[in-house]
Amino acid sequence: MKDIYMDHAATTPMDKQVVSAMNPVFEDVFGNPSSIHSFGRKARKYLDEARRTMAKSIHANEKDIIITSGGTEADNLALIGTAFANKDRGRHIITTVQEHHATLHTAEHLENQGFHVTYLPVGENGLVSVDDLKNALTDETILVSIMYVNNETGMIQPIREIGNVLKDYQEIYFHTDAVQAYGLLDIDVKEYGIDMLTVSSHKINGPKGIGFLYAANNVKIEALQFGGEQERKRRPGTENVAGAVGFQKAVDLAINNKTDRNTSYQGFKDQFISHLSDSGINFEINGDEKKSIASIVNISFPGTNVESLLTNFDLDGIAASSGSACTAGSVEPSHVLAAMYGENDERTTNSIRFSFGIFNTTENIEEAANRVVKIVKRLTT
Amino acid sequence: MKDIYMDHAATTPMDKQVVSAMNPVFEDVFGNPSSIHSFGRKARKYLDEARRTMAKSIHANEKDIIITSGGTEADNLALIGTAFANKDRGRHIITTVQEHHATLHTAEHLENQGFHVTYLPVGENGLVSVDDLKNALTDETILVSIMYVNNETGMIQPIREIGNVLKDYQEIYFHTDAVQAYGLLDIDVKEYGIDMLTVSSHKINGPKGIGFLYAANNVKIEALQFGGEQERKRRPGTENVAGAVGFQKAVDLAINNKTDRNTSYQGFKDQFISHLSDSGINFEINGDEKKSIASIVNISFPGTNVESLLTNFDLDGIAASSGSACTAGSVEPSHVLAAMYGENDERTTNSIRFSFGIFNTTENIEEAANRVVKIVKRLTT
Ligand SMILES: Cc1ncc(COP(=O)(O)O)c(C=O)c1O
Ligand SMILES: Cc1ncc(COP(=O)(O)O)c(C=O)c1O
Repeated sequence: MKDIYMDHAATTPMDKQVVSAMNPVFEDVFGNPSSIHSFGRKARKYLDEARRTMAKSIHANEKDIIITSGGTEADNLALIGTAFANKDRGRHIITTVQEHHATLHTAEHLENQGFHVTYLPVGENGLVSVDDLKNALTDETILVSIMYVNNETGMIQPIREIGNVLKDYQEIYFHTDAVQAYGLLDIDVKEYGIDMLTVSSHKINGPKGIGFLYAANNVKIEALQFGGEQERKRRPGTENVAGAVGFQKAVDLAINNKTDRNTSYQGFKDQFISHLSDSGINFEINGDEKKSIASIVNISFPGTNVESLLTNFDLDGIAASSGSACTAGSVEPSHVLAAMYGENDERTTNSIRFSFGIFNTTENIEEAANRVVKIVKRLTT
Repeated sequence: MKDIYMDHAATTPMDKQVVSAMNPVFEDVFGNPSSIHSFGRKARKYLDEARRTMAKSIHANEKDIIITSGGTEADNLALIGTAFANKDRGRHIITTVQEHHATLHTAEHLENQGFHVTYLPVGENGLVSVDDLKNALTDETILVSIMYVNNETGMIQPIREIGNVLKDYQEIYFHTDAVQAYGLLDIDVKEYGIDMLTVSSHKINGPKGIGFLYAANNVKIEALQFGGEQERKRRPGTENVAGAVGFQKAVDLAINNKTDRNTSYQGFKDQFISHLSDSGINFEINGDEKKSIASIVNISFPGTNVESLLTNFDLDGIAASSGSACTAGSVEPSHVLAAMYGENDERTTNSIRFSFGIFNTTENIEEAANRVVKIVKRLTT
C-alpha cells in the first residue's frame, strides 16, 4: 500500500526543478558572497538575483528582503527586532491567539521582557475581527502581527482590511506571517499596507532551512544576532547561496503556477470532502470553508479522537496531521481550535488537518478518501 | 588564465560526495521530522543519524548537539544563551580581542545589556596567554569564550591548557569557536574540558547555512529564538534535514581524512612559503608559524597595501583575502593584526591571508606563488 501525503502544510516535497537549480550552484558557485574576488562576486550575483525574485514576488524592493534560516527566524526577527528598536515609542504589541508558535511564543517572550501583548480572539469561523483590532489599538501600540492564513484551519484572515485600517497609523508596524498564504494568494506589500512579511521556503516546494522577512525601508529593526555585516547588517552569517537559489526557483514556480495550483488544490479539497459526504460518515469542517485557502481543510470526526485517528491513518498509509507539526512528537490539543470553539469543545481533540500539494493526484485523493472513510467507520461503530 | 582559489578559510567548495549524499534526501526524504507519520519518521531518522555523526566527531553525546543555521548563530547562542540563563550567578564574561565578529560583536551586545566583558589581549605571536586568562577570572565570571584557531592568522590557541585551568572552575562555562580548527585538529570535548563548541559546515566542504553548537548537558542555556520544540527546545524551526545530511557527509570525510588533509595542506603551505623565499621578495609571516594550523598562513608584504594587492591578485586570478570575509565588501584594517602588532603597525594594512584546501594542488600552488611573486615585485619596485 502506497503512503499518501496529505500534510503539505507541515512541509512539502522539493520540486525536481528546484533540485536541478541548486546542483550547479553546489558544484560551481561556492564562493563566499562577502569575498571580493571572482569566486565571491559570482556567488554574490546568484544571491542578488535570488533576492530580486523574492522581492518581485511580493512587489517589494530587493533591499528590503532579509534572508533568514526559515519562517521561525523571520517571525522572531520581526517581533523581537522591532519591539526593542521601538520600545521608546511604546511597549504595546497586538497579535492573535491563533498565531503559529513562532509568533505566539515570541510574543510571550516579549511579555517577559516588559512588553504588553494583546492577543485578539478568533470567532468560530476561525477569523480575527477587524473591529476587535481597532478597539485594541492604543497610543502605546508599536506593532500588529497577524498571520495571513492559519496553518491549522487554512482560514484566510482579513489582511487587506487590517492593512487599510493601519494605513491611518503610520507609526504602527504591520507584520503578517504569510508562510501558508505565499504562493497561492496574491501579495502586494505596498498596496496592502504590509510593513513586514514572513515567508518560508520549505512550504512552497523549496529547500528547508531558508526563508525571508520582508521589512520595509522605514521599519526600524534591530538584528537578533551579531557578527558580519551580511543582509545589510540585519542578519549575520555566511549566506546560504545554494539554498537561496533553490528558494528562488520555488518562488518562480509558485508565482507562475499560482492559478493552476489554486484550481488543482481546491479540486482535491472538493473531491475529498464530497467523497466523505457521500460516504455518510459523520464529520464537520472546522472554520468557514468558503474563506479558507485551497490547500488546507481541517475536519472534525465526532466520536473519535486524534490519537486513534492518526495511529490508524499511519497504519493505513495516510499522512495527515493534528495541526502544527512544529510542536509535534506529542499530540497536544490544538490551541487554534481551542481559540475557536473553547478549550473543552470535543473538536479540539477529534480534528485532523488535511493539506494538499504537488504530491496529490485525483487518484490518490480518491484512495485517501476511501481509506479515511473506512477508518472513521471502524472507529465510530 | 585559471583562477586559483586560496581562500578556503572564507568558505570551501562542497565535496562531490556531499552533493551526492544530499540529492537522495532532496528527492525522497522530504518529511518534517516533527511529523509523526511515516514521512516524518523517515526524516527524523536521517536527522538523528546526522546528529550522531556530528556528536561522535567531538566525542560528545548526541543529545548535546544543537543544529543551527551556521557558525554565527552557534556563537550567538553560546554567548547570549548562557549569559542570560546564568546572569543571577554573575555578569562577567571573558573573551579575546581577536575573536571572529560573531563572538566579538555578540560580546559587545552583551555589554549593552549590562554584562561586563574582559577582552584578553594577544601577543605578537597571535596567541592568548593562559596567565592573562587566570588573572582575569573573578567570582562573577560565568563564561569564557576563546576561539580554537584564529581565522585570519591560523594561530592555534592553547585550548587544552585553558580547558585544564577551567576544570577547577566548574561553574564557569568554557566555549570555543572551533570553526577553523574542526576537521584538522583533534577535539575531545570531555577530555579537553570544553562545555560549548561551535562548528560551521561550509568551512569543511559541507553546505552553507548549517552548523552546530555543542552544549554539554549541564550547561544552562536559553534559546535565542522561540517557536516549535525542535532541538530539545533550544532552537526552533523546521529542521534542515538535507543540509544536516550533507554536513554529516562532510564531517565523515573530514574525520576520515584528517591526517591526509593536514599533510597535504601543510605541504601546500610549505611549498608556497619556500617559493616566496626563493624569489627574494620581501615578506614576513604574521604570528608564530610553528603554532599555526596547516590550512592558513597570513603574510605581510612590506611596501604594499591590501587594496592594491587584492586588486592585482584578482586581476591575475588569485583568490585570497585580507582576513575575515564576513565583514568584507569593504577592506577594513584587520582587528586581529592590530591586536597583535598595534593599530598603527603597517602589517595591519599590507597583509594577506592565504588558505589551503581541497581545491589546491601542487601545480596550482606553484602557479599561484609565481603570480604572487610577480605582483609583489611589480608593486614594490
Ligand atoms: C504559519 C507558519 N509560520 C511559521 C512557520 C515556521 O516556519 P519554519 O518551519 O520555516 O521555521 C510555519 C511552519 O511550521 C507556519 O506554518
Ligand atoms: C572563526 C569563525 N567563527 C565563526 C564564523 C561564522 O560562521 P558562519 O559563516 O557559518 O556563520 C567564521 C566564518 O566566517 C569563522 O571563521
